[in-house]
Amino acid sequence: MLNVLYAGRPEGWAAYRPALETAFAEEGLEVALSRDHPPAEVDYIVHAPNGPLRDFTPFVRARAVLSLWAGVESIVDEPSLRIPLTRMIDEGLSEGMVEWVAGHVLRHHLGMDRHILGQDGIWRGQEVPPLARDRQVAVLGLGALGRAVAQALAALRFRVSGWSRTPHRIDGLDTAHGPEGLAEVLARAEILVLLLPATSATANLLDADRLALLPRGAVVLNPGRGSLIDEAALLAALDRGQVGHATLDVFRTEPLPPGHPFWAHPKVTVTPHIAAATRPASAARVIARNVRRDRDGLPLLYLVNRAQGY
Amino acid sequence: MLNVLYAGRPEGWAAYRPALETAFAEEGLEVALSRDHPPAEVDYIVHAPNGPLRDFTPFVRARAVLSLWAGVESIVDEPSLRIPLTRMIDEGLSEGMVEWVAGHVLRHHLGMDRHILGQDGIWRGQEVPPLARDRQVAVLGLGALGRAVAQALAALRFRVSGWSRTPHRIDGLDTAHGPEGLAEVLARAEILVLLLPATSATANLLDADRLALLPRGAVVLNPGRGSLIDEAALLAALDRGQVGHATLDVFRTEPLPPGHPFWAHPKVTVTPHIAAATRPASAARVIARNVRRDRDGLPLLYLVNRAQGY
Repeated sequence: MLNVLYAGRPEGWAAYRPALETAFAEEGLEVALSRDHPPAEVDYIVHAPNGPLRDFTPFVRARAVLSLWAGVESIVDEPSLRIPLTRMIDEGLSEGMVEWVAGHVLRHHLGMDRHILGQDGIWRGQEVPPLARDRQVAVLGLGALGRAVAQALAALRFRVSGWSRTPHRIDGLDTAHGPEGLAEVLARAEILVLLLPATSATANLLDADRLALLPRGAVVLNPGRGSLIDEAALLAALDRGQVGHATLDVFRTEPLPPGHPFWAHPKVTVTPHIAAATRPASAARVIARNVRRDRDGLPLLYLVNRAQGY
Repeated sequence: MLNVLYAGRPEGWAAYRPALETAFAEEGLEVALSRDHPPAEVDYIVHAPNGPLRDFTPFVRARAVLSLWAGVESIVDEPSLRIPLTRMIDEGLSEGMVEWVAGHVLRHHLGMDRHILGQDGIWRGQEVPPLARDRQVAVLGLGALGRAVAQALAALRFRVSGWSRTPHRIDGLDTAHGPEGLAEVLARAEILVLLLPATSATANLLDADRLALLPRGAVVLNPGRGSLIDEAALLAALDRGQVGHATLDVFRTEPLPPGHPFWAHPKVTVTPHIAAATRPASAARVIARNVRRDRDGLPLLYLVNRAQGY
């Protein structure tokens, strides 16, 4: 029996307790999971910087600290932490992003909203949409998330173009780069997915000029960063029909204030920054796998190099 | 230059004209497409039984009749038809089905409706759903469409169970068969997809007893056949929360009458029999490929055996 201490955010306990118990059982581990084991009896510590634990001194028997966060900068220099520290590499993050984007691309591709919003006894919307293979989707940003999204859309047979500032070659994808490549990609994007990082170079990337390059009625999906979009320009493009719909998950201010015009606009769907979130179930699997590996004498995955800081 | 006559449904001309012109160009064919070439100058006839053409006698130069329909029973015995006849095998049919099912599975998986219907300034629904890999989807019916759907859902990482009356083995899928297999599959189906054929054995397959086997709050998708569902039992299961939502594309009577309780039920989404439809773009590609093959001296695809009748 291993004693595992949950030292994550207290509000996370309700979700993490069953997720961790399931994951430990799936790894064949007998674990007593608790938020208040006596420190001297703890074998592993599940940790988050917004949890209650700072001083690791009393945990004399603990073999490792397993962080629920990818960023460990707030703990890596803690002098009382003298046992191995692992960080969270959650495969669920990119899977969740793929699911949000694939779902909303298919929603707009199929024109689902007219059915979801139009249950009034009228047998409408029989004009079938084109097949995915006849639908152009563009993904701006080809980092880990952009690439995973572009490949999943291509697997659904959409015609996918990918764009990034610098050249990337990706199997099965039509890619472009630089300002000229961007203009070409935008000109054929019936559905546009923004997955660029927030930098000074990408701020307001989707401005009035670039919105004007899209085919009339194009759909904009933003699960990336709020700063990528010039909000006034997007609202103007929606009002004149240049953009057909915008489904937005990220905003300059979050939660999006109740008075923001995005809420009231009939062609905007707001989702509350859910496209990429660490899932308790997948994070718990990463933790459980590492406990099992350590019990079996295997090296820990995602071990933090304390000198490097990550 | 080849003269191609469009003898399909007149209402289809607006969609088929550009689709056929694009498809002929993509095959490198120079084609004059029209609804009223002089019969003696026609090279190929694009035909549908609900179009204007019955008597093929005047088309003395025509090389083939290319049907837009899969079923050619109304034309196969026409005595004036003495040139080869091909039927439509539209790959788009199964692709369209995959897109409708994948889209609605993701819609329910992600809980999209609360965002689509709830744009009221409240930053709600931040509880992220489980990942697809933690979501059980069951597909009943493992014919060509059911198999394509199940494989696409598995590629999106859903946990997919497939069921059919007789045993089927499908790579990467957990399959079951027979009455006991059905009970097992239903018991874990968070999202249930009906893709069985309409037969006397499948009529009312989803009745009160089988609905009671589903996990509470399960979602039912029916893009298969209207007769598969006991409608009164489904409405009762929706009312008591046993079924969380039903998204239905097929009905015993179509169009679904305006007074049918499905229209008014807040947990039902009706779509107007659009999940599997022949698309002009993909049907046009089948036609154009056959014209090009014939020009190149290759055998026609999907040639009808007149003795067999299909």
